[in-house]
Amino acid sequence: MGKLIDRVVVTPLAVIPLAAGDVMHAMKSSSSGYTGFGEAYFSCLAPGAMKGWKKHSRMTLNLVVPVGVVRFGIVDADTQEARLYQLGPQNYARLTVPPGLWMAFRSGSTETSIVLNLADIEHDPSEAETLAQDAMPFDWSAPVWIIGSEQVLAS
Amino acid sequence: MGKLIDRVVVTPLAVIPLAAGDVMHAMKSSSSGYTGFGEAYFSCLAPGAMKGWKKHSRMTLNLVVPVGVVRFGIVDADTQEARLYQLGPQNYARLTVPPGLWMAFRSGSTETSIVLNLADIEHDPSEAETLAQDAMPFDWSAPVWIIGSEQVLAS
Repeated sequence: MGKLIDRVVVTPLAVIPLAAGDVMHAMKSSSSGYTGFGEAYFSCLAPGAMKGWKKHSRMTLNLVVPVGVVRFGIVDADTQEARLYQLGPQNYARLTVPPGLWMAFRSGSTETSIVLNLADIEHDPSEAETLAQDAMPFDWSAPVWIIGSEQVLAS
Repeated sequence: MGKLIDRVVVTPLAVIPLAAGDVMHAMKSSSSGYTGFGEAYFSCLAPGAMKGWKKHSRMTLNLVVPVGVVRFGIVDADTQEARLYQLGPQNYARLTVPPGLWMAFRSGSTETSIVLNLADIEHDPSEAETLAQDAMPFDWSAPVWIIGSEQVLAS
């Protein structure tokens, strides 16, 4: 089985440069991390803002950030393990988060950032728990996981 | 059966206003126009730029514009029917385009626009034809379809 938090996966994605505007991959049905399609939605994030904490019991998240910079904090409350990831068009990747982990995300940009979630089930408030932003100890200034390097623990 | 171009559908989408950043719906597996998930990708569009013309033989496009303003021109080459749609966060909707129609899109913004395509098959260059931008007569200044009003012919 391995540890739940080790099932958090960052998959670098291709950006195809074009004069009329880049094409940026997000996910294919053959991609690692794809577990079905339930719903796609955007979550905008104002400069300085934070959303979360939230824990899903059934939804797998597949997160892509085409605009801005977003830091994602992920915590396994059972093992007290935590990780910090940073996504945006400059380090363009998809973050796969399995159910059972707490997640919050914070803006790292002076512009509005945009997160696309490609979720494997439709939105269902009964399958998510929430916690206040300050209810979860988390070191947002820890080293972030950088694409191509080893994953590092956030706290 | 009806006409192919009448299967082009615009579905208004919900935007949920939040202080930390809006949530903008894109598509659910139960949505009208959903015919399966093959691939999701972003196509950025520089100010003043145009992409197309392209015709898919198998792919159904589901297009959402969370940033900027984009005009989509759609042509049935067999019947010479054409339509013009304008999407962006200010008239936020999903545009479903069945296979067999020519499509091009043009920026209507001074910033880079972003188009999300939720396609029902993975990218396959063998199922798409292309035409030069000026090879298809099209009136980009025609009245656009506005959400909530009747669809209008572009030319």
